[in-house]
Amino acid sequence: MKKFVNDPKNYVPEMLEGLALANPDTLRYVPEYNLIMRADAPREDKVSLVQGSGSGHEPAHVMSVGPGMLDAACPGDVFSAPPTDYVYETVKRVASPKGVLLLVNNYTGDRMAFEMAEELSDADGVTVRTLFIDDDVSVQDSTYTVGRRGVAGNFFVMKACGAAAERGADLDEVYRIGEKVNAVTRTMGLALTACTPPAKGAPLFDLPDDEIEMGVGIHGEPGRRREKLRSADSLVEELLTAVVEDLPYVSGDGVALMVNGLGGTPLGELYLVYGQAHKQLVERGVEIRRSYVGEYCTSLDMAGASLTLVRLDDEIADLLAAPAEIPVHVF
Amino acid sequence: MKKFVNDPKNYVPEMLEGLALANPDTLRYVPEYNLIMRADAPREDKVSLVQGSGSGHEPAHVMSVGPGMLDAACPGDVFSAPPTDYVYETVKRVASPKGVLLLVNNYTGDRMAFEMAEELSDADGVTVRTLFIDDDVSVQDSTYTVGRRGVAGNFFVMKACGAAAERGADLDEVYRIGEKVNAVTRTMGLALTACTPPAKGAPLFDLPDDEIEMGVGIHGEPGRRREKLRSADSLVEELLTAVVEDLPYVSGDGVALMVNGLGGTPLGELYLVYGQAHKQLVERGVEIRRSYVGEYCTSLDMAGASLTLVRLDDEIADLLAAPAEIPVHVF
Repeated sequence: MKKFVNDPKNYVPEMLEGLALANPDTLRYVPEYNLIMRADAPREDKVSLVQGSGSGHEPAHVMSVGPGMLDAACPGDVFSAPPTDYVYETVKRVASPKGVLLLVNNYTGDRMAFEMAEELSDADGVTVRTLFIDDDVSVQDSTYTVGRRGVAGNFFVMKACGAAAERGADLDEVYRIGEKVNAVTRTMGLALTACTPPAKGAPLFDLPDDEIEMGVGIHGEPGRRREKLRSADSLVEELLTAVVEDLPYVSGDGVALMVNGLGGTPLGELYLVYGQAHKQLVERGVEIRRSYVGEYCTSLDMAGASLTLVRLDDEIADLLAAPAEIPVHVF
Repeated sequence: MKKFVNDPKNYVPEMLEGLALANPDTLRYVPEYNLIMRADAPREDKVSLVQGSGSGHEPAHVMSVGPGMLDAACPGDVFSAPPTDYVYETVKRVASPKGVLLLVNNYTGDRMAFEMAEELSDADGVTVRTLFIDDDVSVQDSTYTVGRRGVAGNFFVMKACGAAAERGADLDEVYRIGEKVNAVTRTMGLALTACTPPAKGAPLFDLPDDEIEMGVGIHGEPGRRREKLRSADSLVEELLTAVVEDLPYVSGDGVALMVNGLGGTPLGELYLVYGQAHKQLVERGVEIRRSYVGEYCTSLDMAGASLTLVRLDDEIADLLAAPAEIPVHVF
């Protein structure tokens, strides 16, 4: 295993400590519960947004805490849902009179932890709602899910809900927006290589030198099939066709297009992928109104990428364009 | 080779085309000369800034074009200096009455191309100055250099010069600032793995599974030595000691600290490295005033990282804090 790591058991806490040290004025790290929160949370004048999941998907979600985005994130260990009490303690710390919205990718372990934390918080008199994100079109059920998985599209739900909350929308309204964005967001990714969790010390699965995993999950879960590596353009075509035909996105639609790197793929390749996806969408008559290229939801050091489309209307486009400030985008 | 690539010969143009398609309102791509420029360049009221080098270091420099940063970037092919005429044609397109500053990492091929382009531009009556960046403390001379190499520290020179130019400073003043920042900036990196140039199709050098290259160059050039992989903390200590003792940075200094990923190392590991570097600097009595964690100057898909320190005074700190807007940081 070739990684910057000390004791693999401390990989997540050491990462979170580094994150807090790099952002001393804006973020606070609470080691007992693995949580990262805004230094100024809770803001009583807004709904608080919380997201959590296993670690290993950075910048999702611990590096997405800040004005216009999350109020707190509570990660578990690498690829493990956060324990219920981590979620519960996080909610307690950012509880606002306007309520708390939990944004959760649809995995069985995460659902359980967050639903139980919601019940505990309700009993404390905190108003909480939980929204599940399930944008991955690759498979219907998966290793860790009933129903579709939540992947890189979660960025758009966070961003739109974050903007609405910042503008003072109430909890039901922020929930409505999140549900609306999730309903028009679709993603599919592929792995060129496996990833290596620090505690395992070896690749999570075997992928021969000339094969890819089409439709891979962000924890290395199987996708649609193994196949031979081929040209970037042809890989993009398969990903894009799967995404486009699922909603479907049709000629005349205006969209946001995201090319998300899975961790080990450099930015140059992501822009090459973006160019081809852009051209193929234009050929389909789809208008690209917003573009996102980079790492938004990764899978440790996996080489690969995912494509996400969001169908925009004026409301969503306006929320996505709102200002936000998070560590990963700081100059 | 597991990459998103079509014909390897087209890797760079396809990447640049994707970059321009993702930023239609702000960037323009000129395929004949591989150049990316601001759509509103030249701005007659400011000095124009141009940087170029081989490709494969993204976001340096093609994704660093925008207000407060570069006016144009002219990359060569992967790890190859841009041809003189690419540089010359770039200068022509962003020539401002206030002059043009060329920011060049210190490599023999790049120096030649930019110095000849400067002469050609001078003959056309364009006022041009060229500043060389050489922040890498690892080796005195290297495979492609006489003197030290320019690596991730170039970001700070770009940023400070970009801010000064945006505020209307004249060419000599922007040059003075660039030289001043370069003089107080030091970097060293290490490779956990080699990188794979698309046209070669295989790793650029062999690095056994349990070894690292301490002091690696951003083109895979040898550093100080091969050694066994060890704990992150201990690797950080060696990098940081080499950087700190070179200037030297001393107790009471205020600095910017950058942890730069070399392409294949995920953000989580970079923050773990940041945390340790931060703590070791505090122990040395050095005050960290600004923090940078992410990818600034990569080496294709190489796993590894570099540490950069900049000694701040009020002038440099103010320029680094100025607003800027580049594709890689867009929401």
